[in-house]
Amino acid sequence: MRAGPAQLEAVRRALEGQVALKADPGTLAVYGHDESDTIDAPPELVAFPENTAQVQAVFRACVANRVPYTPVGARSGKSGGSISLEGGVAVSLEKMTAIRSISPEDLTAVVEPGVITGDFMKAVEAKGLFYPPDPNSLAMCTLGGNIAENAGGPRALKYGVTRDYVLGLEWVLPSGEVVRVGRQTIKGVAGYDLTGLFVGSEGTLGVATEITLQLVPLPRKVMTALAIFKDVHQAARAVSAVLAQGLVPRALELLDEVSVRAVDGKGFTFPAGTGSAVIAEVDGALEEALVAELSQMDEVFRTQGALEVLLAQDDGQREKLWAVRRGVSTALRAMKKHKISEDVCVPRSRIPEAIARYKALGAELGLTVATYGHAGDGNLHANILYEGPHERPRVDQALERMMRLTVELGGTITGEHGVGYAKRSFLAFEQSPGLIALQRQLKAAIDPLGLMNPGKIFP
Amino acid sequence: MRAGPAQLEAVRRALEGQVALKADPGTLAVYGHDESDTIDAPPELVAFPENTAQVQAVFRACVANRVPYTPVGARSGKSGGSISLEGGVAVSLEKMTAIRSISPEDLTAVVEPGVITGDFMKAVEAKGLFYPPDPNSLAMCTLGGNIAENAGGPRALKYGVTRDYVLGLEWVLPSGEVVRVGRQTIKGVAGYDLTGLFVGSEGTLGVATEITLQLVPLPRKVMTALAIFKDVHQAARAVSAVLAQGLVPRALELLDEVSVRAVDGKGFTFPAGTGSAVIAEVDGALEEALVAELSQMDEVFRTQGALEVLLAQDDGQREKLWAVRRGVSTALRAMKKHKISEDVCVPRSRIPEAIARYKALGAELGLTVATYGHAGDGNLHANILYEGPHERPRVDQALERMMRLTVELGGTITGEHGVGYAKRSFLAFEQSPGLIALQRQLKAAIDPLGLMNPGKIFP
Repeated sequence: MRAGPAQLEAVRRALEGQVALKADPGTLAVYGHDESDTIDAPPELVAFPENTAQVQAVFRACVANRVPYTPVGARSGKSGGSISLEGGVAVSLEKMTAIRSISPEDLTAVVEPGVITGDFMKAVEAKGLFYPPDPNSLAMCTLGGNIAENAGGPRALKYGVTRDYVLGLEWVLPSGEVVRVGRQTIKGVAGYDLTGLFVGSEGTLGVATEITLQLVPLPRKVMTALAIFKDVHQAARAVSAVLAQGLVPRALELLDEVSVRAVDGKGFTFPAGTGSAVIAEVDGALEEALVAELSQMDEVFRTQGALEVLLAQDDGQREKLWAVRRGVSTALRAMKKHKISEDVCVPRSRIPEAIARYKALGAELGLTVATYGHAGDGNLHANILYEGPHERPRVDQALERMMRLTVELGGTITGEHGVGYAKRSFLAFEQSPGLIALQRQLKAAIDPLGLMNPGKIFP
Repeated sequence: MRAGPAQLEAVRRALEGQVALKADPGTLAVYGHDESDTIDAPPELVAFPENTAQVQAVFRACVANRVPYTPVGARSGKSGGSISLEGGVAVSLEKMTAIRSISPEDLTAVVEPGVITGDFMKAVEAKGLFYPPDPNSLAMCTLGGNIAENAGGPRALKYGVTRDYVLGLEWVLPSGEVVRVGRQTIKGVAGYDLTGLFVGSEGTLGVATEITLQLVPLPRKVMTALAIFKDVHQAARAVSAVLAQGLVPRALELLDEVSVRAVDGKGFTFPAGTGSAVIAEVDGALEEALVAELSQMDEVFRTQGALEVLLAQDDGQREKLWAVRRGVSTALRAMKKHKISEDVCVPRSRIPEAIARYKALGAELGLTVATYGHAGDGNLHANILYEGPHERPRVDQALERMMRLTVELGGTITGEHGVGYAKRSFLAFEQSPGLIALQRQLKAAIDPLGLMNPGKIFP
């Protein structure tokens, strides 16, 4: 429920002089939008706390005055998680950008939530360490946002997702109370795993104000290859075949023909006849081992019909391949006026079937469906491109059928983007009423007034 | 609170003919004890459900009659988690032993909770797959128990713990209601991570009746080495030095001089002058890579003062080394009448200091302290050996000081054994009153009557 002007004014008065605030229309408009492209809902006030005490003050002022509040990272989310659906206060963590420590001895780091993921990666790599989770938006997204969404990325195939690297959190609960959950050690099982519960809670159970992350040694060698196929079905079967061989590349990314067409010639030109492509990357300590792995993979790709397998010869060529992959989302967006990007995930053995059936669905409804993404772990970004509102009823039908189909195949409606606002009406396709009720019960135990990030996740 | 005889009789009547029950004194005595050796508290009835519906029936009968109930796996736990502190019904999952499926295509398996961990490992290895979590008790412990405790093991250093391999659960809540949490896919972020919350909840929030596990390809090669040191301080520094080099062995286990003495000559004879030993194990796809890794490690060990580094020449020798490691717990138990095994975990850089200070504490109090375990991830099994009740006050003092010291060093009171009954009075050393209150609140939201496994985890 939206708050009235008097309640908002009371929050402003309580925080003025203590916490930086903005309420000009330009700022409000900016914070009303994220990368999900599904809704514009500006907050009524944006707060920029600079430390834990200021975050607490904002939450407490909102609770005291019954004003909804929604934490915000870099607004690079794809499910509308940071959108202030019921107005109120957007609580931006973007000013908390300190990397407090990086310990090569302990293989841990302590950071504030506003640190940009890509900056953090560079900082740890400079010390010979490695932070594997690599969401596509790493140049802009923040570690706090990654934690709220339990972000993934291509390297999740070998290294797992954000959750696997979060050891402990300083966490401000919706009430404004601070708890330290988790630990500084690699292992630990004291009490319930609240770190696990909070990571991926999409800004509905509190926010991290300090994050202890686990690091790993920086792999000494990385090698990247690009396999070219005549169509996406062949490419999808090749991905399955590589995994069935027991190979564990750190990434195995797929581009279908629409995605290839979208990026072709923009910094990289695909060979003639390319209908689909797979980027495979391996890492490790020893070059010989990587060469052996890649040559096995090369053989599997060729057996599955690859037209060509190109090996990046240096870091420049590797970076070029990844720029192609990272450019897909933007390039697809440029093809038509609107794009909805889903991040379904299916069991690996169902990857070829899933891709074929999403395509067939698009064809049946006369819509352009582009599929790309982390095929190696079954996490596919299925995009629907369309021109305008007249197509929206068909798009909605396609989305709903795509979600039902994914669940039918044993999959999930979201592999890494979260449910947020965009997918809340699909959650019940996957989860039983009892399970949804249980989650609402936990939410109510932690946020009894339901003021924190209202309207998210649950139908 | 204990139930009265009429309440128990009502439970028995409700279940008779539906669920196998036992109440003979012999059975009750067996189920009153686990490997923690801290308390004997027999249940008043043991139920042996064979399927989910029977588990639900037991929970419902207990709830309806206000009788406490405690889930039990193989009773190999080290923290008293399966002990029926307030009597009532022990709910043994040992009859649910089906491995329902193993899928090499999806790299997943679906099992019942009573499957013995070691049996499961063999079954997946026969299909060229690998389930890494390897608690020391793998010959007897069950996957359901591993999930309740979030069990670890030596390979956690490279591969993580049980939680990292649990994709989804069929879970019977304390009320008897069944929910399916998690997923069948490798990635997935739909809703709160209840799988994470339930794994490691030590039988206080429900039980798993079906478990979907993630598998990895079986490493093609494994190599194992034994490094001999003159004392434990040198060995501990060598462990730190190996990790600082960026090497990632799959296990790095340490034995101090008491542990070496305890197992020496039992199937393996240590070289003269051995004051401490480190077992290092590497795995991967390529023999050359492993040889290179081991030779780097060999160099680090020798630089740190290793007297000898022995390489297992075949699987038989490898198995011999691991038999030594697995035999430590039993061999220490044989040295004195009583043994209390703690599983503290400290940040890696503090390993040498932690070992030195535990030893000093033992010396100060005139107690034998043996330290061994997963030194690579800072998870040390610090054992106090003693002869009888007359030493118990000093033992209790030592335990308390050891726990406080561990927390001071940035560590946790339990790396993998759980809090259970044995460590509940130490939890407040590590966690704030607010955090403990929050966990109690979640427990109350899920088990409002507090009948499931009462008296555990919280002080």
